Amino acid sequence: MRDDTGFAEEIQAFIDDKTKPVGALGRIEDLAAQIALMTSTVTPEVHTLGLILFAADHGIAAEGVSAYPQEVTAQMVLNLLSGGAAANVFARAVGATVTIVDAGTATPVEHPDLVLCRQGAGTDNFRHAPAMSAETREEAWAAGAALGSEAGTDALAFGEMGIANTSAAALLAHKIIGTPLATLVGRGTGLDDAGLARKLAVLEAAAARTGTLETRDALAEYGGFEIVMMAGAMTGAAEAGKPVLVDGYIATVAALAALTLKPGLRPAFVFCHRSAEPGHDAMLAHLEARPLLDLGLRLGEGTGALLAWPLVRAAVAMLNEMASFSSAGVSGAEV
Amino acid sequence: MRDDTGFAEEIQAFIDDKTKPVGALGRIEDLAAQIALMTSTVTPEVHTLGLILFAADHGIAAEGVSAYPQEVTAQMVLNLLSGGAAANVFARAVGATVTIVDAGTATPVEHPDLVLCRQGAGTDNFRHAPAMSAETREEAWAAGAALGSEAGTDALAFGEMGIANTSAAALLAHKIIGTPLATLVGRGTGLDDAGLARKLAVLEAAAARTGTLETRDALAEYGGFEIVMMAGAMTGAAEAGKPVLVDGYIATVAALAALTLKPGLRPAFVFCHRSAEPGHDAMLAHLEARPLLDLGLRLGEGTGALLAWPLVRAAVAMLNEMASFSSAGVSGAEV
Repeated sequence: MRDDTGFAEEIQAFIDDKTKPVGALGRIEDLAAQIALMTSTVTPEVHTLGLILFAADHGIAAEGVSAYPQEVTAQMVLNLLSGGAAANVFARAVGATVTIVDAGTATPVEHPDLVLCRQGAGTDNFRHAPAMSAETREEAWAAGAALGSEAGTDALAFGEMGIANTSAAALLAHKIIGTPLATLVGRGTGLDDAGLARKLAVLEAAAARTGTLETRDALAEYGGFEIVMMAGAMTGAAEAGKPVLVDGYIATVAALAALTLKPGLRPAFVFCHRSAEPGHDAMLAHLEARPLLDLGLRLGEGTGALLAWPLVRAAVAMLNEMASFSSAGVSGAEV
Repeated sequence: MRDDTGFAEEIQAFIDDKTKPVGALGRIEDLAAQIALMTSTVTPEVHTLGLILFAADHGIAAEGVSAYPQEVTAQMVLNLLSGGAAANVFARAVGATVTIVDAGTATPVEHPDLVLCRQGAGTDNFRHAPAMSAETREEAWAAGAALGSEAGTDALAFGEMGIANTSAAALLAHKIIGTPLATLVGRGTGLDDAGLARKLAVLEAAAARTGTLETRDALAEYGGFEIVMMAGAMTGAAEAGKPVLVDGYIATVAALAALTLKPGLRPAFVFCHRSAEPGHDAMLAHLEARPLLDLGLRLGEGTGALLAWPLVRAAVAMLNEMASFSSAGVSGAEV
């Protein structure tokens, strides 16, 4: 990535010469400038998207923090491998490939297309003990980074599936940026009021088990295998010069961890949608991120990132294909 | 379109049985329900999009209400026919066809791909006289309706190009829904403060030329050929059972006219984006419309409608392709 301000001005002049009033394409222009900056060219070759979806289970599910039973994680992995989940449907609609990674589900799933990176049969219950060891955290991060840097597409989106992973994400955000749990904790996949109160009480108790933590320590104490792998994968992709499309609540926590450790990678991160899970706003504010879409999604699986991909494609196409005032023989403003 | 509430409940049950928590796909679910309702099936065949773009000139341009000279309309028509405008670029990015219609530019453009429906060499200057006759308005509306109903794609988006057409649109909205011009009038393609004040003064004087008007009379007094044709085309498309993707400020005025005359067509209209032109909000509020995208666009040409098409495709794909809990063997919520 070039970091000279001269290049930023060159990008802006290139965009301003396109046949439209200055600024008339709004955030598509900002997105185009961001992609030009991160790829160091005003004609970026960013045409293909891959979704890597990490699935894992969480020991904290035993505390009754989710509306769904833990076996749903493995059932949904099979649904994803069969092509019937929302992520598959949206990926086909926008022309993205899908890779499913078993980062450590409680019940192993067998399928020829499943990428096995199992870090265990789900994390330990972080109400009472660290979710994983420091050694496992390092292995998960490195495995994710390898997947992110070696992927065959021009850009990458990351998704996740893991019953109770909004609980892990809330605690990670709490420990990394200090936002109160009451702000961060939401209904996840659909808790009622009593379930929400129980979830908050469990997470308050789990948070009290430790004090202030460095980001890496927070990942081991409260992380999920899928979240740690995703943070590593985002880092690997960004370091390989690939735009990173960030999905919702869980993916933003992974981005928070990745960018706390490597803030220089920020230009590669495209924040795709604002989740209906209320705590998402606090994370986005901390990252000074304004997502492209606001559609009330709260599913995960990378669905929000997939829906934003056509906007990235449009921004790239604007750079590569749109005529300039001089080339098209169009008069400029009379100002 | 079926209008029984039983069918609406059937649609909701069909969507709720998809493998996701109830409501977790937010506005994509609402959009899917709307498309199912308008097409009378939970498995709609809505796969292809055509953009029909109407270009025309406006006599009011002589009053200095635009930052660009009038010859830009014809120049941009040539740019659109060459494939270099934003609408072409975005249409290719999202897989839509583009049809350019000359509804009446000041300078005729010759090109084998240009559809000729010229209603004149631009409208008359509505500061001093009606923009067009009642007869011309009827012809423009009918020609638009024919294009909308006979188009070969499953869904239609409509775009426009016409120097000074935000002035025509502001006056039409003012006469149709009564919003003050000061709320409706904005900078268009980029007026400075003095230009904005001049534009408002010109439009106030033009508005004072007439009193309260019926929608059809307002279209003749202040309309543009492209706006009247677009309103007719939206009506024709909606009556043919095709989803109508509504772009920004100008297109929303056309929708306002169409829906004031035929309110029963409302379910076919998908409002695609919130324009940066401030008066757009008043029209959207009147229509109780909440657009899908909010990206600060203010270009026209149908660009915002094109960017929303992948969301419509995703909603349709969700209906047609996403697995149900029973078919995928996934457990439901334990509530």
